[in-house]
Amino acid sequence: MTVGSSDVPATAFSLHPDRFFDSDPVVRRAARELYEEMRQLPLVCPHGHVDPSLLAEDRAFPEPSALLITPDHYLFRMLFSQGVSMESLGVPARDPKTAIERDPKKVWRLFATNYHLFRGTPSRAWLDFELHELFGVRERLAADSADRIYDQIDERLKSPEFRPRALFDRFNIEVLATTDAATDELRQHQLIRASGWKGRVVPTFRPDALFRIALPTWRGELAALERLSGGSIATYAAFRDALVERRAAFRALGATATDHAVEEPRTERLAVDAVDSLFAKALRGDATVVDQQRFEAHMLMEMAAMSVDDGLVMQLHPGSLRDHNSVVSSRFGADKGADIPLRTEYTRNLRALLDAYGSDPRFRIVLFTLDEATYSRELAPLAGHYPAVRLGPAWWFHDSIEGMTRYRQLTTETAGIYNTAGFNDDTRAFCSIPARHDLARRVDANWLAGLVARHIVEMDEAHAMGRALAYELARDTYNVGPPARDDRVGAARTALAGATA
Amino acid sequence: MTVGSSDVPATAFSLHPDRFFDSDPVVRRAARELYEEMRQLPLVCPHGHVDPSLLAEDRAFPEPSALLITPDHYLFRMLFSQGVSMESLGVPARDPKTAIERDPKKVWRLFATNYHLFRGTPSRAWLDFELHELFGVRERLAADSADRIYDQIDERLKSPEFRPRALFDRFNIEVLATTDAATDELRQHQLIRASGWKGRVVPTFRPDALFRIALPTWRGELAALERLSGGSIATYAAFRDALVERRAAFRALGATATDHAVEEPRTERLAVDAVDSLFAKALRGDATVVDQQRFEAHMLMEMAAMSVDDGLVMQLHPGSLRDHNSVVSSRFGADKGADIPLRTEYTRNLRALLDAYGSDPRFRIVLFTLDEATYSRELAPLAGHYPAVRLGPAWWFHDSIEGMTRYRQLTTETAGIYNTAGFNDDTRAFCSIPARHDLARRVDANWLAGLVARHIVEMDEAHAMGRALAYELARDTYNVGPPARDDRVGAARTALAGATA
Amino acid sequence: MTVGSSDVPATAFSLHPDRFFDSDPVVRRAARELYEEMRQLPLVCPHGHVDPSLLAEDRAFPEPSALLITPDHYLFRMLFSQGVSMESLGVPARDPKTAIERDPKKVWRLFATNYHLFRGTPSRAWLDFELHELFGVRERLAADSADRIYDQIDERLKSPEFRPRALFDRFNIEVLATTDAATDELRQHQLIRASGWKGRVVPTFRPDALFRIALPTWRGELAALERLSGGSIATYAAFRDALVERRAAFRALGATATDHAVEEPRTERLAVDAVDSLFAKALRGDATVVDQQRFEAHMLMEMAAMSVDDGLVMQLHPGSLRDHNSVVSSRFGADKGADIPLRTEYTRNLRALLDAYGSDPRFRIVLFTLDEATYSRELAPLAGHYPAVRLGPAWWFHDSIEGMTRYRQLTTETAGIYNTAGFNDDTRAFCSIPARHDLARRVDANWLAGLVARHIVEMDEAHAMGRALAYELARDTYNVGPPARDDRVGAARTALAGATA
Repeated sequence: MTVGSSDVPATAFSLHPDRFFDSDPVVRRAARELYEEMRQLPLVCPHGHVDPSLLAEDRAFPEPSALLITPDHYLFRMLFSQGVSMESLGVPARDPKTAIERDPKKVWRLFATNYHLFRGTPSRAWLDFELHELFGVRERLAADSADRIYDQIDERLKSPEFRPRALFDRFNIEVLATTDAATDELRQHQLIRASGWKGRVVPTFRPDALFRIALPTWRGELAALERLSGGSIATYAAFRDALVERRAAFRALGATATDHAVEEPRTERLAVDAVDSLFAKALRGDATVVDQQRFEAHMLMEMAAMSVDDGLVMQLHPGSLRDHNSVVSSRFGADKGADIPLRTEYTRNLRALLDAYGSDPRFRIVLFTLDEATYSRELAPLAGHYPAVRLGPAWWFHDSIEGMTRYRQLTTETAGIYNTAGFNDDTRAFCSIPARHDLARRVDANWLAGLVARHIVEMDEAHAMGRALAYELARDTYNVGPPARDDRVGAARTALAGATA
Repeated sequence: MTVGSSDVPATAFSLHPDRFFDSDPVVRRAARELYEEMRQLPLVCPHGHVDPSLLAEDRAFPEPSALLITPDHYLFRMLFSQGVSMESLGVPARDPKTAIERDPKKVWRLFATNYHLFRGTPSRAWLDFELHELFGVRERLAADSADRIYDQIDERLKSPEFRPRALFDRFNIEVLATTDAATDELRQHQLIRASGWKGRVVPTFRPDALFRIALPTWRGELAALERLSGGSIATYAAFRDALVERRAAFRALGATATDHAVEEPRTERLAVDAVDSLFAKALRGDATVVDQQRFEAHMLMEMAAMSVDDGLVMQLHPGSLRDHNSVVSSRFGADKGADIPLRTEYTRNLRALLDAYGSDPRFRIVLFTLDEATYSRELAPLAGHYPAVRLGPAWWFHDSIEGMTRYRQLTTETAGIYNTAGFNDDTRAFCSIPARHDLARRVDANWLAGLVARHIVEMDEAHAMGRALAYELARDTYNVGPPARDDRVGAARTALAGATA
Repeated sequence: MTVGSSDVPATAFSLHPDRFFDSDPVVRRAARELYEEMRQLPLVCPHGHVDPSLLAEDRAFPEPSALLITPDHYLFRMLFSQGVSMESLGVPARDPKTAIERDPKKVWRLFATNYHLFRGTPSRAWLDFELHELFGVRERLAADSADRIYDQIDERLKSPEFRPRALFDRFNIEVLATTDAATDELRQHQLIRASGWKGRVVPTFRPDALFRIALPTWRGELAALERLSGGSIATYAAFRDALVERRAAFRALGATATDHAVEEPRTERLAVDAVDSLFAKALRGDATVVDQQRFEAHMLMEMAAMSVDDGLVMQLHPGSLRDHNSVVSSRFGADKGADIPLRTEYTRNLRALLDAYGSDPRFRIVLFTLDEATYSRELAPLAGHYPAVRLGPAWWFHDSIEGMTRYRQLTTETAGIYNTAGFNDDTRAFCSIPARHDLARRVDANWLAGLVARHIVEMDEAHAMGRALAYELARDTYNVGPPARDDRVGAARTALAGATA
C-alpha cells in the first residue's frame, strides 16, 4: 500500500467556480470579472497533436480507458513512477506476446485507486474538468466509485453528441492545428476539407525526421519524401526543393506554421560545399551524430529562410532528451513519459538565425523552453528586442497553475505580454482541450487580477490584456485569424521595413 | 558599527502561534488546522549529522556557546561575512598556538550583538524556537539581554531533563539516522544498542572518502578499510568485497540507507579491465583528478547495484564545492561555512544509472540538489517517471521558508508529492531538531492551505497530504517504518515487477 | 493594427498611493507604514550612467521626445520588438544620410499610441511616475492625449525649476556617482567641483576598454591612456602604473568605486612573464579572443589588488552579450536594446580572486548578475561567507517589481540583507531617478511587510531593515557616507583582522 491511497472516500464532487483564484477577496473579485469575459471567447488551438482522422472520420470515441488513460503519458507516467506496471494499465507493448491487461474496467479501477497521486498536478485539474463538465460526473473518482463513473462515461461516449465534430462545435473551437510529419500525405486533412464540414482544422509542417541524418530511420524518411516529390533526391539542392514543395502542400491545406524539435537549438549556415558533402555523406549512410548536429543547425537557418518566403510561422521546441529510459522504450516504444528536459542555451545558439532573419518583417519565430531559468535570462530579452520573436506559452511540464504563473512573472516585465504567443493546448487528448484552455484562462485572469490589485494596471487594461492572452495573441502570432491573413500581416509589419530594408 | 546593529532593544519575546503562515485569513485558517494535526506526529529523522556518542554516553551538554555557536557553521559563517573574526567567536583553529576567545560569555555576547544579521533567515527562526521552547527564554536576544539569557540556558543545560536521551524522548523522535564513514567501526552505535535504551538510532553508510583516489588521504582510508576487513586489499575485487561487507555491518546495526557526495553526479559503468587498472594506479599513488572522476562515476553504479542486492536506500548529494576559501580552511579546517554550490546536471549524468537500475523494484535513490534550476527542469521529471527515484527535500541553503515553498511549487505539478522523500533535518545540532521539523511542517501546512484556498485540493485531501509530508513519506522512502520492513517493501514494489522482470 | 493598441481611452490618470503593495490588508497596512519612513530618506545613487555634463553645465533639458524617448533603449527596444522602426522613433543612425523622423511630436505620438505595450513593465511604472509627479500630467498617455501631454511637459522643461541642479536638490539626492572610462579626463567632474555648487557628484573608474586587447579599438584606448599619463606605455609594468595613477585621479575627484564588465567573470593571476608577453603581443596587434579572456581574468585580479591598496570598491557586472543584433548595431551603433544575458558561473570563476582577497578587511567587491539562477545557488552563498562580498541589487532586466521581489526571496535566507548593497538606479535618465528609487522602496517595503505579516520579523525590525535597504546599505557598501570615510571603514573592518592577518 503506497502512502496516501487509503484515505480517499468517494464523496460528492463539484468544480468550485473560483478554482485557481487567490483567496484574497480583492484579487478574487477582479479575477472573476476578468475570467467571465475570457471564458466566452472561442478556443484558438494553433499547436497540438490531435489525430486529424478523429475529425475526418467522426466516429464515436472508444471506451473510457482507451480514450482517457492508455494513450496519455501524463497519466501513466505518474503511476509508473509509483511502481504500477504499464502492462497492468493496458499500455500496448511492442512485443505482441507481452501479457497486458485487456479488461478496460480493471485498468480504470487501478487508475482510480491511484488518483490521489495527482493531487496538486494539472493532470488532476484537467481530468476533473472533463469528468464534471463533459461527462457529468458528480462523485469523486476513487476506488469505490470507479465502476459507476466508468459506466457513466461509457454511456455518454456512445451518444451522437459525443462525436468529435459535435464536440468541436460544442467546445467552440475556432481553429485547430495538428502536427504532421513533412512526409505525411495529409489525406485526413484532405478528407476534412472535402467533407464540407465547416470546422477549421489545419496541418503543421514538422520535418524533424528528415534532418536526423545519423539515425538508421533517415533513409526511410527520405524515401517517403521522394515518393511525395515524385523523383529521386540525390543532392542537397533537390532535398531543399522537395522541402519547399512540401511546405507549399501544407499551406494549400491551410497550414500557417512549422514546428521543429532539437536537443540543442544551434543555428549556423553552412557553406554550399559543406552542406552538399554532408548530404552526400548522409546518403552513403556515414553521417555521425556531430554531422547531424551541424546539419540540423543549418536546416534551422534554411527553415527560417523559407519562412521569410512563404510566411509559415516557425516554432522551435528544443531541450527534451527523448526516451531517457531504454527499459521502457525497448518494451513500449517512444513517447512513454520518459522524456527529460535538458539545460538549454538560446543567446549564443540562436544568434546566427536572429542576426540573419530576426529583424525581417516577413519572419516570425515562436520560441519554447523546458528550462525555466531561460525565461528571464534569455527568452524575454530576445522577445523584447527582435521583431520576429514571440515567446511560446509555458510548455509541457510547465503548462500548469504554478508554471504558467511563473512564466508571466518571469517574462512580462522584460518582454511585455504582446511579445508572447497566447495559449497552446499542445495536446493529443481532444476531449481535454476545453479543460486546458479553462485552466490557462483562469491562471491568466488571476495573474491579471494581481496586477490590478497592486495598481500596476487599471481594470480596463486588464480586460484588454485578458482578451489578448485568451484569444487575440494566438490568432495574431500564428496568423490564424479569419480575415485575409496575408494582407493583414503585411500591413502590421510594414512599419518595420525601414529598419531592415 | 555595521548597519543595523544599533537598533535592537531587548524587549519581550514570544513565538507567534501563526508564524510562517500567510496573513490571508482563508489561508491562515486552513494552515492552522492542517498544522495542528501535523505537529502531533512523531519526528522521523532519516538523514542528519548528530554525533552518535551524544546518545551513547548521554552526558550533559556543554555551556551555551559551545553547544549553540562554536560548532554551527550556519551561524559563524554569517558573522564572518560581516567582518567578525572566527577567533573572536571561539572557533577552534588548527594551529593550537592561535589565540582564540576562551571566554564563552564574551562569545555569546558578540553573537547576541550581531543577531540582527539573521533577520529573515532560517537560522533565526530555528534559534528563536530553541530559545523559547527549549530554554524558556522570554526576552529578545540582543546585546543587553545576552548575559541573562546565557545564564538561563546554562542553568537549564545542567538539569537531568536536558540530557540527550531525555530530550530524544521529549522531542518525540521515532528514529534518528546518523551519517558515518564507511570505515567507522560504529562503536557508538553498538554502545547504544547494548545499553538497553529504547531510542532508535541507526547509522548511514557514507563511503565518499574511499572513492577519492586522487587525494593524499586515500591510502589512509584504504588502510582503515583493510583493518576492518581483516586483510590486505590489493585488487578492485577485494575492495568491492570489503564494501559489501561494510554495508552488511551497517545493516546489522539498523542502517537503511547510504549517502554519497560528489561534485558532479556522473554515472558510468567501467569495463572490468578499466576499473582494475584504475584501482592499481590508485594503489601506486598515481591517480589523477580525472581518474577519480571516472572512479566515482563507476562507484555510483556499483553502489546502486549493491543497493539492489541489500535494500539500502541510496542518497545522492551532489554539487557542493567544499572549502572554497583556503584562507579559512588552512586556519580552521574543513566545513567552516565556505562550501559553495555548483551548477549541476542530472539528465545526462544519471542516465546510465537510471537506465540500469531506475526501473528495478528493488532499488530506491533519493536525489538532492543545491541548484534550484534543476527542480522543475530535471529532478521533478525524473522523479515523475522512474519508480526508483524520490526527490529529497529542499537541501541546506534551501531548507528555509521561501526555499521549501519554492521546492513544493517547482516540483509538485510534475512529480506530485508522493515522489518526494518527506523531511530531513540534516543537522548536527541535536537541540535544533524540533525547531527544524516545526518550521518545515508549518511551511508545508501553509503551502497546502494555499492549495485548499484556491480549490486545487479539498481539505480532507490536504490533511492526508500533510500527514504524508510530515511523517509517512520519510518513513516510507527510507524504509524506517516500524513493521518488518523488508516484507512491506517487497509487497509495495511487486506491482512493478511486470515492467522490469 | 497590433493586438491591444485600440482600446486605450485617455481617461483621468493618477498614481495610487498603495501601488505595488499586496492587497491583503495586513500586508498593505504594514507596507504603508514602512514605506512612509523609507520615502523620506535621501537618495543615495552610487551606480549609474548620468552624463556629468548635465550637472556641470546645468542647462535646460531638451524637448520631451529627445529627453524621454530617443535616448532610452528600454523604451524603443519594446517598440522595435513590435515592428516599429527605430527611424520612425527618431533614433539617430550612424549614417547621417539615413532618413529618420525629425518631428519630435510625431515621435511622441507614435510612442503614446504604443504605450499599451509596456503594461506590466517597470518602464511603464517609471514613466507614469515621471509624468505624474514631475510633470503634473493628469490624463492617461494614449494616442488622443499625446499632443496635450507633450505640450505640458515641454512647457515645464523650460522653467528654471526644471534645470538639472534644481532637480538634483528637489530629488533629495545625497550623492550621485557617474560611470566614466578610465581614460576620461574628468573635466565635467572638475567643472562641477570648481563651480562651487554643493551637489555631490563623483566619478566611477571603468577601465573595461583598456582590457579588451583583441579589439581593433584597443590601441586608441591605450593612446588615450598614454596622453593622460604623459608618456609612452611600452610594458605591462608601465600599463599597471598608469592604471594606479588614473585610479588616484578618480579618487581625487571623490570616486569611491570601480566598475568592470566582462562576458564571463573568470579570474586568474598570470605569472609575470606570461602577462608581459601577453601585453607585448597586444602591442603588436596580435592578441586573440582567448588572449583577451586571459588578460581580463588577470586584470580582475590586479583591480582587486589595487582596491586593497586604495580602498576603491570593486563592482563586477558580468554576463551580458552586447549588441546581439548586428542589423541594429551596424545601423544605429552600440547599446540599442540588443544586449542579451548569458548563463553565468561565479563559484569556480571567482575562486582565485576571492581566495586571494575575499577575506581581506581592506577589500570590498559588489557582485551583479543577469542570471537569476545564480542568486540562491552561488551569489547568496558567496555573500553569506566572504567578508569582502556584497551582493549588488537586482540588475537591469530584473530591476522591477517581480525581479526585486525574487531577489529578496532568493538571497535573504542565505545571505541576510546586510550582505546586500542597497539600491542602484543604474540609469542614464536623470529625470527617472526618483521613480526608480520609489519603485524599489515600495517593493522592499512590501516584501518586509510580508515578513511582518508572517511573523518572521517584528515591526521594529522591519523598520530598521527598511532604512538599511533604502539608504544605509548603499552608503555603507560604497563608502559614500558623509563622515570621514576612511576612518569609519577602517574601524568597521578591524574586527576581521585576526582571521586574515
